[in-house]
Amino acid sequence: MALADLKRLERNEDGIATVLGILKQRFGERFLTGQSIREQHAHTMTYIPAQLPDGVAYPKRTEEVQEIVRVCAEHRVPVIAFGTGSSLEGQVNAPGGGISVDVSGMDRVLSVNAEDLDCTIEPGVTREALNTHLRDTGLFFPIDPGANASLGGMAATRASGTNAVRYGTMRENVLSLTAVMADGRAVTTAKRAKKTSAGYDLTRLMIGSEGTLGIITSLTLKLQGIPQAIAGGVCPFPSVEAACNAVITTIQMGIPVARIELVNQLQMKAMIAYSGLDYPESPCLFLEFHGTDAGVAEQSELFSEIASEHGGGPFLWTRETEERAKLWKARHDAYHSAKALRPGTQAVATDVCVPISRLAECIVETERDIAEIGLIAPIVGHVGDGNFHVSPLIDASNPKEIEVLEAFIARLNERAIAMDGTCTGEHGIGQGKMKFLELEIGTGVDVMRAIKRALDPDNIMNPGKIFGF
Amino acid sequence: MALADLKRLERNEDGIATVLGILKQRFGERFLTGQSIREQHAHTMTYIPAQLPDGVAYPKRTEEVQEIVRVCAEHRVPVIAFGTGSSLEGQVNAPGGGISVDVSGMDRVLSVNAEDLDCTIEPGVTREALNTHLRDTGLFFPIDPGANASLGGMAATRASGTNAVRYGTMRENVLSLTAVMADGRAVTTAKRAKKTSAGYDLTRLMIGSEGTLGIITSLTLKLQGIPQAIAGGVCPFPSVEAACNAVITTIQMGIPVARIELVNQLQMKAMIAYSGLDYPESPCLFLEFHGTDAGVAEQSELFSEIASEHGGGPFLWTRETEERAKLWKARHDAYHSAKALRPGTQAVATDVCVPISRLAECIVETERDIAEIGLIAPIVGHVGDGNFHVSPLIDASNPKEIEVLEAFIARLNERAIAMDGTCTGEHGIGQGKMKFLELEIGTGVDVMRAIKRALDPDNIMNPGKIFGF
Repeated sequence: MALADLKRLERNEDGIATVLGILKQRFGERFLTGQSIREQHAHTMTYIPAQLPDGVAYPKRTEEVQEIVRVCAEHRVPVIAFGTGSSLEGQVNAPGGGISVDVSGMDRVLSVNAEDLDCTIEPGVTREALNTHLRDTGLFFPIDPGANASLGGMAATRASGTNAVRYGTMRENVLSLTAVMADGRAVTTAKRAKKTSAGYDLTRLMIGSEGTLGIITSLTLKLQGIPQAIAGGVCPFPSVEAACNAVITTIQMGIPVARIELVNQLQMKAMIAYSGLDYPESPCLFLEFHGTDAGVAEQSELFSEIASEHGGGPFLWTRETEERAKLWKARHDAYHSAKALRPGTQAVATDVCVPISRLAECIVETERDIAEIGLIAPIVGHVGDGNFHVSPLIDASNPKEIEVLEAFIARLNERAIAMDGTCTGEHGIGQGKMKFLELEIGTGVDVMRAIKRALDPDNIMNPGKIFGF
Repeated sequence: MALADLKRLERNEDGIATVLGILKQRFGERFLTGQSIREQHAHTMTYIPAQLPDGVAYPKRTEEVQEIVRVCAEHRVPVIAFGTGSSLEGQVNAPGGGISVDVSGMDRVLSVNAEDLDCTIEPGVTREALNTHLRDTGLFFPIDPGANASLGGMAATRASGTNAVRYGTMRENVLSLTAVMADGRAVTTAKRAKKTSAGYDLTRLMIGSEGTLGIITSLTLKLQGIPQAIAGGVCPFPSVEAACNAVITTIQMGIPVARIELVNQLQMKAMIAYSGLDYPESPCLFLEFHGTDAGVAEQSELFSEIASEHGGGPFLWTRETEERAKLWKARHDAYHSAKALRPGTQAVATDVCVPISRLAECIVETERDIAEIGLIAPIVGHVGDGNFHVSPLIDASNPKEIEVLEAFIARLNERAIAMDGTCTGEHGIGQGKMKFLELEIGTGVDVMRAIKRALDPDNIMNPGKIFGF
C-alpha cells in the first residue's frame, strides 16, 4: 500500500472515551494510555507508519481478556492483540484507534505432557522462554521464525522459519487453542488428541487469522524430542539455480533435512565483510540435519554427493556444536551484516513463497529487478519450502525511496503469484499485503469476509487488516 | 444416535420435483433416479439406516457441479457429495432427500509436478488409482485409510489411517482445493506454495467439513518420494499397557516410524485362526519403517531394544518385500478375520483418539466394558497417534443388539473425551457422532454453526450432518 493510502478507519470517539474510563477503573496500573507506551504498541517494524491505539491493557488471565473484549464489544471499540510486536506487516497497528491487548504478562507454561509430546501455554510465552522451560525434559518446540516472538503471535500470523521444512509451520504444530471471540466468549477449539475429525477445523481457522476473529489466550503445542545428533554445514554453489536444483533433489530424495537456507551472493558478501569469514563470495546453502549419529552422517554425505552433482561444494559439515556455531555464524549475522551494506538505513523484510520448481527463476528475476532499479536488497531463503525474504535497505524518511520500494514489492508479489505462489509465506497479510490477497485468492476472499462478518459482525477484532475492513 | 432418533429433515417436495425435472433434462443419462442407484448412494456401511437421495447426478467437470448446485440453491434442495461411499458415520445419507452428486466420474489426474512433489487431481480419483498413476515417478501419496476411498471424500472427512503417524492426515497433505460453494461459486483456496500466511486457512476449513460447506472438485496434494528402503515386522507384548508404553518411548525418541499398529488379543486370536499364522495369541504391534537401507535397519534395531525394555519381543523384522507381506498379512486380514469371529454379523467400525499417555488406560477400560456386556469387539489401533478402532460384531436386524451397541459407543466416546481425546480421530461426525460433538467442543460448536449459516444460509449443503441442522 502506498504510504498516502494507509487507511484510517473512522474513529468511534464516544465509544473509545467510555471504554478508556471503564478499563482504567477496572485495571488501574494494568491499563496505560501514555504516548510512549501507545507508540510501543503500534507498528514499529519496517516502513509502514505507526497508527497508535488509545490505550494498552495488560490482562493476566483469559477471563480478563473476556472482560476487555466485552467492554469493547458493548461500545464498538476496536481490540488489537499484541504479543512482542515483532510482526512485519502492520498487524498491530490501530487504524481506527482502540485498545491494544498486550498478552505479554500471560506467560505461564500451564502444563507439559512429556509422554504426549505436548504442552499448554499462555500466549505471551516466547519461543525462547518455552525452550528454556523445556530444557530438562529432552523436548523442544521447533518453530523458529528468527525473532524471539510470542507463541500467541506466531500462531496468529501462521509463522514458521528456518526449520519448517522438517517440522512444519504453526499450522501443523498447534493441537488446540483457546480464543476469546468478538462477543467475549472463550472457545477451545479441540481436545489434546493428535488427530481429530470432529467438525470444522477451528484451530486452523484461528491460526493465521491475525487477531481478526479472536484473541488467543492459550495454546496446546506439539513438541519434538531433541535429536540425538545434529550436523550442520555450509555449501557454496556457482549460481542460485545450481543451489535451488540441489535443494529440489534433496527434498525429492526424501532426505529429512532440518534446515536448508539459501544466502544469495550479495548477502554472502555482506556477511563475509561483517563477520570476517573465509567463505567464497557465491551463493551458499546452510544446512542442518537432525537424527541419530549414523543418520546425520548419512544425510550429510548424501547431500554432499547431491551438491557436487550440481557443481556445488565442498560441503563443510560437522556434528560438533561449536564448529557448527562457527559455520552458521554468518547466517545468524545476516540481518546486521545486511544493514552494514548501507549504514543508517532500514531493512524492510518482505517475503514470498513459490513452488520450489519456480524458486531459482523467481530469485533470479528478483535479483535482476533489484539490479535494474539500483536497490541494495540481499536475499535469504527457507528454500526447502520455496520461501524467501528480500530485505531492501531504504531511507524510510525519503518518499522517493518508499515509492521505489513499493513498486518493487508489488512486482515481487505479482511475480510470486504468477508462479503459482503466495504473496506471503510466513509474515501474514496485515496492512502491507492487503492489495495482493485478492489477486492471489480471488473469490476466496469473499468467503473469508463472510466468515469475518459472521463471527465479528461489528468488526471490532483488529479491524483494517487482511481484507481492509 | 438411537435408531429411532435418526432425524429426518422436512422435505421440500415441490423444490425436489422441480429440480428432478431440470436435472433430467440437462444431464440425461448422467442423472438417475432408479431405486437401486439411489440405495447405492445412501449410507451402506455399518448400522445407520439408509436415507435415500431423490436423484443421482454424475458431473464430469467443476462447471457441471456448479450448475447442479445452482439449480438446487434456487429451489432450496439438498446437495450431498458422494465419492465411493466408504464413509462410516452416515455422511452420504439424505435425511431431507435431495440430489446426490456422484463425483466418481471426475477422476482425472490433472497434473503431476514431480519437482514440487505435488499433484492436482479431480475428487473422484481414488488413492489406489493415484498411486498407480504415480508408479513411474518415484513418488507416492501416503495417506492410507484402508478402503480405496476417493481423495475428495478423504479430504471431506479429514481421513488418515495407518501411516499418519509419519506423514500426517489429509489436513497436512492438501496444499489447495477447489470447492463449489452453496451459491454455486467455485473457490480455489490457495496457490501451490508449500507454505502460506495469506489470510484465513480456507483449505483446512473445507477439509473435514463433510460436504456441509461445499463440494470439492479438485485437490492439490503433497506427494512423497518412495523410500529407498522399507522394513517391517511384528512384535508381541505381554499386555496392551506394555505395547502402549513401547509406542510412547518410540515416539518420544523421535524414531520416524511409518506405521505402528496395535492389534489386541482378541483380534490376534481371530487373525491366527483365520490366516493360520504362527503368532503368539497376545497383543502385538505391527511396524513399518521408511528410509535408507542403513536408516531402516537402525530404526528397527532401536525399536527392538525398546520393545524388550517393555517386556515385548522378539521383534521379527525384514527389508524383503515378500517377507514383509507375510508378516503383515495378519494385519491386512483384520477385517475379514474379525467377521469370522461371529459369522453372519456386521462389523460396526467406530473410532476414538486420545493422547497416547491415556491410550493403554482407554483400551483396557474399553476391553473391560466389552467383556462385561458380552460383546465380541476386536480392537486395532493407529497407536502412534493414540487412535484406535473398535469393531463390535452385531446383528443389525436385532433392535436389542443395536441398543446395547449404542450404549457401548456412547460410553466409549465419553471415555475418550474425558481423557482429553476426541469422539472421532478419522471417521468424522456425520450422523453417528453428532451427539458427542457438543460434549467435546462445547461453545466451539456455536462457532461452527455460525460459519455454516454464513456460507450456506439456506442449508442446502449436506444438511443434517455434524450439527444436525
